[in-house]
Amino acid sequence: MFKDATLIEVNDAMHRSSTAFNLYKKYSIKQRALLMRTIAKEIEALGDELIQTTMRETNLPEARLKGERGRTIFQLNSYADACEKGDWLEARICLPIPDKAPPRPDIRKMLVPIGPVVVFGSSNFPYAYSTAGGDTASALAAGCSVVVKAHPAHPETSSMVASAIDKALKSLNMPKDIFIHLHGASFAIGEALVKNENTKAVGFTGSYSGGMALFNWANQRKEPIPVFAEMGSVNPVYLFSEELSNNPSGYGNMLADSITLGVGQFCTNPGIIVGLDSPSLDQFIDTLSEKISSNVTAKMLHTGIAQSYAQKAKRAISQKGVKVISSADNMPAADKSAAAVVSVTASNFLANPILHEEVFGPFSVVVICNDYAEMKRVAEVMEGQLTSTIIATPNDVQANQDIIDVVSSKCGRMIMNGVPTGVEVCLAMQHGGPFPASTDSRFTSVGADAIKRFARPISFQNFPDQLLPEELKSENPLLINRIVE
Amino acid sequence: MFKDATLIEVNDAMHRSSTAFNLYKKYSIKQRALLMRTIAKEIEALGDELIQTTMRETNLPEARLKGERGRTIFQLNSYADACEKGDWLEARICLPIPDKAPPRPDIRKMLVPIGPVVVFGSSNFPYAYSTAGGDTASALAAGCSVVVKAHPAHPETSSMVASAIDKALKSLNMPKDIFIHLHGASFAIGEALVKNENTKAVGFTGSYSGGMALFNWANQRKEPIPVFAEMGSVNPVYLFSEELSNNPSGYGNMLADSITLGVGQFCTNPGIIVGLDSPSLDQFIDTLSEKISSNVTAKMLHTGIAQSYAQKAKRAISQKGVKVISSADNMPAADKSAAAVVSVTASNFLANPILHEEVFGPFSVVVICNDYAEMKRVAEVMEGQLTSTIIATPNDVQANQDIIDVVSSKCGRMIMNGVPTGVEVCLAMQHGGPFPASTDSRFTSVGADAIKRFARPISFQNFPDQLLPEELKSENPLLINRIVE
Repeated sequence: MFKDATLIEVNDAMHRSSTAFNLYKKYSIKQRALLMRTIAKEIEALGDELIQTTMRETNLPEARLKGERGRTIFQLNSYADACEKGDWLEARICLPIPDKAPPRPDIRKMLVPIGPVVVFGSSNFPYAYSTAGGDTASALAAGCSVVVKAHPAHPETSSMVASAIDKALKSLNMPKDIFIHLHGASFAIGEALVKNENTKAVGFTGSYSGGMALFNWANQRKEPIPVFAEMGSVNPVYLFSEELSNNPSGYGNMLADSITLGVGQFCTNPGIIVGLDSPSLDQFIDTLSEKISSNVTAKMLHTGIAQSYAQKAKRAISQKGVKVISSADNMPAADKSAAAVVSVTASNFLANPILHEEVFGPFSVVVICNDYAEMKRVAEVMEGQLTSTIIATPNDVQANQDIIDVVSSKCGRMIMNGVPTGVEVCLAMQHGGPFPASTDSRFTSVGADAIKRFARPISFQNFPDQLLPEELKSENPLLINRIVE
Repeated sequence: MFKDATLIEVNDAMHRSSTAFNLYKKYSIKQRALLMRTIAKEIEALGDELIQTTMRETNLPEARLKGERGRTIFQLNSYADACEKGDWLEARICLPIPDKAPPRPDIRKMLVPIGPVVVFGSSNFPYAYSTAGGDTASALAAGCSVVVKAHPAHPETSSMVASAIDKALKSLNMPKDIFIHLHGASFAIGEALVKNENTKAVGFTGSYSGGMALFNWANQRKEPIPVFAEMGSVNPVYLFSEELSNNPSGYGNMLADSITLGVGQFCTNPGIIVGLDSPSLDQFIDTLSEKISSNVTAKMLHTGIAQSYAQKAKRAISQKGVKVISSADNMPAADKSAAAVVSVTASNFLANPILHEEVFGPFSVVVICNDYAEMKRVAEVMEGQLTSTIIATPNDVQANQDIIDVVSSKCGRMIMNGVPTGVEVCLAMQHGGPFPASTDSRFTSVGADAIKRFARPISFQNFPDQLLPEELKSENPLLINRIVE
C-alpha cells in the first residue's frame, strides 16, 4: 500500500527541505510555537479514526494509545511554550568595555537552528516518538525543517499524522516543505537520508544496530553531522538491604508492574535487578514471581518483535546457572509474549556477557550477589544506561557510596525508590545516557532541553541594535531570559 | 631532550587519570575554582624564565608572549569565576505534582563531569591553547581530570607550565594525577591517547588532518567519545559597497594589520576578502598592498610552518588568474615569511577550490566580483568558518539580506565593520563553527560556555534533599542560578 521513496525522491525531499529551512529559520519563536500548537490541534481532530488505525497496525490497546496521543499533544504544546519562553536560546550579551586593553567590543550570542533534520519514526511509540513526536517537535521549535521517515510497522498511522501537520502548515500559510513525510522499509532509504548533503542532524529511537548504522554513516560524510540515537538500555535496579527489608513484597509488586507495563516495550523497562542473597530478597522474588506468572499474555507490537523477544528470552534462559522464577508454563514462545523473570548468581552473571544484553520485552534477570563487593562488580560491568534505579534508605546510600558512584557514572537518570518506566515530560528530565544508551550523552530527547539538540550558537560582534535578531536587541522585545555582562 | 611517552606510559597515565577523576569529581565547584586560581598564580610565579624559554622555542616576541600569558591567566581566573557561579551547570528543578495523572515525581537535573579529558597542546598558542590553556581550564572547571600531550614544538615551555600545575595541586593537597603531562612527537602517542578506554573527551587546536585523525579514531572506538577539534578557517571578509566607499583606505589599513598580526598565525586570520570591482575596491587594494609590502618580515613559529607557508603561498600564487598585489620582492620563500596579498576574479576563484584553502600565515586573497550575485555565489561555496566579517552599512545589509543569510549560516561568529582577529574571552564569545572549522559546531572553545564541552546532564528522580548534590538541594546552599518549575 505504501511505496518506499526512491533515491531520487529522497534527494528531492532533502533539497526542498533545505529551501524551506531557509524560510522557516526566519520565523519568530512565536510563529513556531503557533505552528506546534496548531499541529497538536490537528492531531486531536483526527479523532477516533487515528486510534483505530493504530490499533490495527500495532496491537497496542486503545487506552495506551489514547494516553500516548495525549502525551504527544502535551509535548507539542509544552515545547511550544518552551520555544516561546526562549531559555533554550542561551542568549548572552557582553556589553562593550572601551577602556579595556584591548577594548572589548559588543558581543552577543544565541542559538540558531542547525538545518534540515531527518527523523526516523520508532516502532514502540507510534505517536510520541514518531511522525509528530518529540524529535519532530524539538526540531520545529529550534527552527529546523523536518523530514520524517515513517516506521514501516505503522505507515498508515504515520501518514495520518503527517496529514495533520500538512493541514496545520496550510492553515497558517507556511511553506509546505517545512515538513516532508516519506515511506521507506529498506535500509537504503535511511542511508540516503543520512548521507544527503542537505541533512544537518538525525533523530532516531530504536535498536543498537540501527542507531549505530546511522551514526557511522553520519561520521563518514564529508561533513559529519550529529546523530541523536537512543538505542535501548537494561535499566538496572539495585536493591539495598535496609530499604528492601522495609517492604520486600511491595517492591516485588512494583517491579512486576514496571516489567510488564506495555508488554515490556518501553526503553526504560527494568531488565536487570541486583540484590543481596537474603530472606528479604527471597520474599521479593516470591512476590515478583507470583505477579509475573499471573500476568495476562498480550500481543507485542508486531510479529518480528514477538519472535525476537521469544528467541532472546530463550537464549538468556538457556545460559549457565539461569533459573526461571516465574511459572514455567508462562514462558515466551514465538506466538506468545508472556512475561518472564529469571535469576542467576552474580558470579555466573559476571562471567557471561550474554546476560548483560537487553531482551526487549517483559523480561528481567534477578542477579543475586553474596555481598556488596559483588554488587559493585556487577555495577562496574554495566554499560551506559538511560536509567539506573536504587531501592535504598539514606543509610544504605551512605554505607555504599562507592556503589552509588559507579551507578551514577553510567546513567542519564537515577531513580530512588521508584521504577524507571514513566518518563515525565519536563525541563528537569534527562532521557539519554552514556553510550550505548544513546550516541550523545550530552543531550536529552525528552523535555524542553531536547530543543538544543538541533541548534548551534552564533556570536554577533559589533552589530548595531537594528540589525541584531529580536532575541538579542537591547530592549529585549521578546522578554526572554538573558545573561547580560 | 624530551622523550616520547611509551604506549605503556600512556596506558598507565590514563588509568591514573581515571582514578584521580573519581576523586576530583567530588570536589566542590569552589574547590575547583581555587585550584584554577592557584594554577594561575603559579604560572605567574614562573616569571621571566618562562617567557625566555618560549621565545627560544617558538620565535614569538616577548610582548606577544607576555600578552598571551596574561590571557592564559585571565582565562584560568575567569573560568574559575564561571565555575563557581554555576550557570554552566544548567541546574533545573521540577517540583512534584501529586495530583497530576500520573503524578509527577520530584526531578532535578544538572551537568556532571564527563571523565578524563585528553588535551593536545597547540603550536600557535604555547600558553593560551596548550598545557594550561582554554581546554585544560574548562575541563578542570567541569570537574574532569586532564592529560596533556605537549606540542613537540615547545616541550620545555609545556613542562614548565606543567610543573606550575603540579605545584598548585601539591600546595592544595589535591591528588597529583588530576593533571598528567606527557611528551609525544609521534602520531602513535596521539592515537593511543584517543583510543584508550579511560579517555572520555578530547580537546585539540591545529590542522584539519590532525583534527580529523583524532575525530575518526574517537568514532571508531567501541565507545565513541566527543572530540572538540578546532581545525582552522579562512575567515572571509565581505566588503559591501556603501560602507567600503565611506573609508576604503581605512579598511585597507585595518585588514593589513589583521593579516600580518602575529605573522598571520592566528586561526582567525582573514584569508579571503571579497569585494565588488569598483574605484573604492581599487583604493582599498592600493592601501592594503602598500601596507603589506612595507610589513617587516618576521620569523614564524618554527621552520616547518615557515616552509609550509612558503609552499602554500607559492601554490596559490601560481593558480590561473592570480595577481600578486603586494610588491613582488616581498614574496615568501623557505627562509622568509613575508606577508603577501593576491587578487583573483570571482569566476577564477569559483572555478578553483585550491584558492578556497587556508594558507596558514600572513596571506590573503582578494576576490573581485562583478556584482552581488557573484558575491553570493562566492559566499555559497565557502565551507564552515570560525568567523565571517561584513563591512557594511545598515543599507548594505538590508539590500543584501540574501548574502548575509548565506554568510551567517556558515560561521560561528559574525563581525561587523571590524576584523576577525582578537578573540575576546567572554561569555558571549563563540569560537568554533560549522564543519570543517570545528568538529562540533554546538560548542565553543573560548568563553565560559567552553566548560559545557566536558560535562553531561544527569537527572535525580525522587531523591530526598539530604542525598542530592549541593547544586540541587532545595535551600540552594551554593546560591547558583537555577530554573525551578
